[in-house]
Amino acid sequence: MAKINENYLKLAGNYLFSTVGRKIREYQETHPQAEVIRLGIGDVTQPIAPSVINSLHTAVDEMGKAETFRGYAPDLGYDFLREVIARKDYQERGCSISPDEIFVSDGAKCDCGNIQEIFSTDNVIAVCDPVYPVYVDSNVMAGRTGVYDESLQCYRNVIYMPCTAENGFVPEFPEQTPDLIYLCYPNNPTGAVIRKDQLQSWVDYALAHGSVILYDAAYEAYISEPDIPHSIFECRGARECAIEFRSFSKTAGFTGLRLGFTVIPKDLKVMGTSLWSLWARRHGTKYNGAPYIIQRAGEAVYSEEGRKQILQQIAYYMGNAKYIYEGLKEAGYTVYGGVNAPYIWLHTPKDMTSWEFFDYLLSEANVAGTPGSGFGPGGEHYFRLTAFGSRENTIRAIKRIQKL
Amino acid sequence: MAKINENYLKLAGNYLFSTVGRKIREYQETHPQAEVIRLGIGDVTQPIAPSVINSLHTAVDEMGKAETFRGYAPDLGYDFLREVIARKDYQERGCSISPDEIFVSDGAKCDCGNIQEIFSTDNVIAVCDPVYPVYVDSNVMAGRTGVYDESLQCYRNVIYMPCTAENGFVPEFPEQTPDLIYLCYPNNPTGAVIRKDQLQSWVDYALAHGSVILYDAAYEAYISEPDIPHSIFECRGARECAIEFRSFSKTAGFTGLRLGFTVIPKDLKVMGTSLWSLWARRHGTKYNGAPYIIQRAGEAVYSEEGRKQILQQIAYYMGNAKYIYEGLKEAGYTVYGGVNAPYIWLHTPKDMTSWEFFDYLLSEANVAGTPGSGFGPGGEHYFRLTAFGSRENTIRAIKRIQKL
Repeated sequence: MAKINENYLKLAGNYLFSTVGRKIREYQETHPQAEVIRLGIGDVTQPIAPSVINSLHTAVDEMGKAETFRGYAPDLGYDFLREVIARKDYQERGCSISPDEIFVSDGAKCDCGNIQEIFSTDNVIAVCDPVYPVYVDSNVMAGRTGVYDESLQCYRNVIYMPCTAENGFVPEFPEQTPDLIYLCYPNNPTGAVIRKDQLQSWVDYALAHGSVILYDAAYEAYISEPDIPHSIFECRGARECAIEFRSFSKTAGFTGLRLGFTVIPKDLKVMGTSLWSLWARRHGTKYNGAPYIIQRAGEAVYSEEGRKQILQQIAYYMGNAKYIYEGLKEAGYTVYGGVNAPYIWLHTPKDMTSWEFFDYLLSEANVAGTPGSGFGPGGEHYFRLTAFGSRENTIRAIKRIQKL
Repeated sequence: MAKINENYLKLAGNYLFSTVGRKIREYQETHPQAEVIRLGIGDVTQPIAPSVINSLHTAVDEMGKAETFRGYAPDLGYDFLREVIARKDYQERGCSISPDEIFVSDGAKCDCGNIQEIFSTDNVIAVCDPVYPVYVDSNVMAGRTGVYDESLQCYRNVIYMPCTAENGFVPEFPEQTPDLIYLCYPNNPTGAVIRKDQLQSWVDYALAHGSVILYDAAYEAYISEPDIPHSIFECRGARECAIEFRSFSKTAGFTGLRLGFTVIPKDLKVMGTSLWSLWARRHGTKYNGAPYIIQRAGEAVYSEEGRKQILQQIAYYMGNAKYIYEGLKEAGYTVYGGVNAPYIWLHTPKDMTSWEFFDYLLSEANVAGTPGSGFGPGGEHYFRLTAFGSRENTIRAIKRIQKL
């Protein structure tokens, strides 16, 4: 008699962004005239850069000719992509990462969700609160979190590390020692960043306690200020305690193309076993590589022309971020983020809960955002807006909010 | 202190195709003059069909323009693809499957590897022996198989169902009742098929015992004879006990493009829980959809023009299969498969083990195949050749083997 994985039944509610999407759809159905502006799900709106498009066309043509057709990709990614990533994203920043330590994938969400598989199910995880839901939910499914406590809005066996305005949305070390520590900077959802000395102290902590840091750097391309680390591998000792996730989704608008990568240094060992080898085995067994044409698109992001075009896109979104940040401030909101990250994190007015503010904004201003409480109990009374809309829509959304 | 998932350490040897690849590379390095013909890994060689290429170009252009750019795909796949799949692959064959029951993914390997996650870790799996390694290995990683017994070349808690020449490579019902039953027809690696009455009896068995059948139909496009089921949903009652996996890799040469899908009927419930809802939750949490441009490529496979071109490709490969089958027979080999499947399964001569024959063929004929024992103990003394080479290489390979 087959049995289900009952851990799935412990999941509290639906996946956040599915619920947000459903609520918007339902509102649209009952209000067909309303022109809803979506600043909710972190999806981009700018088209793919021309040099990336050229590269895609070239690769498509290659797939159509016998002499240049490519079948299965190498398990861990094509060398042409792994080499340029290692050089441009790591070696040129002084990080000692080799191409062989890069695992190309179809996106950081999959990697962040799957990485827990290589660890024991009795490991205890620590997450920031609020936090991107995938880290927690994927561990719920694996049975690592215990049951959900409705009153506390927490899973019993997860260490939640409060990220508040007071600590600048960078957590303090928890009382209980975690085995796995999820950190994400620039942060989703708060838009906060971590200074290098703060990140170094987390690396030192992990080394001292035998913990592994799972570092999500999906938004590093949005860092505009100096002295903010782009990679955890800028810190001493990180090669012995950290795994890093990167994405092309936000860097180059690849949300619909799907490309990301994970960096696992060969020095990272747990119980004498190389995590690199475990992850390589997982890739080989359960994954068949990112499409060749998409890997060529990723390569084009690093070309001189591609880089220029991408920087323009990022500047465009960060112009939106500035507009949202200042517009909300003017309207009397308490606002965070938006300087080194494409997310603006605002405190809800009049003691509204996050979902109350979601409904209020959707019905009164026809603007959709993401309720902070969807990211954990520490996100209650907060709300996330993203800078990924078009400039025009962003301006209209903020003007509507200002008129409320 | 972080701990690893020790189930990974139970994995016997490397992933089969990684080992095959490494052995070929090593041989090539020491014999740079040798022109090795690869009929091993089931990778295709024909370029992508022209109508699919056109569709890719159109979709790439859409991604380059603001008005037609697409970001995140719907979690379960675009409607345009799910609808055409439901109609052409199922409804037109008399199977009652709706678009909503199709989950689009980046390939059947990922889906076959990940599906076990939604089941309890104490479920007992049954697999054919020999078998595609992903079914077993993904269950080893999840802790469902127990330890590997070197002497038996088996995992202790897995039910191996012998598939032999005597039973036409279709297993009998096992003594112990399995919770999850993996079946794959047309079969990889044996090239065998299952008749509809045989498959119906497996469906009846699963219904009677509360088991779930995980049916891998990745090779259904190669079926040339009548009365061979293309889908398990041609059988009565399958909607209550079966999940089906399909792939564009072999149907349309998408090994390097990555597209597949899984069918979970909404009637399929285990312990009162819909497996559809569990898999939907997994998709929403750990996956971000197949690339838009690849889903458009998949759609083109079902167009009138696309279909014609794809059928030509399949006929080409099946011409290879026929050549291999007859060529080996002439040379005195005992050969199976190759009629409704792109795989030829041969008995090794002179009592050679599968790996001995692999080395022999590689060094003496410079032909690479796949050792049968890599697919399980029942594959010992067998060897798999694939029909996915070019016609020219296939002919040369067989001529070389005939000269041995």
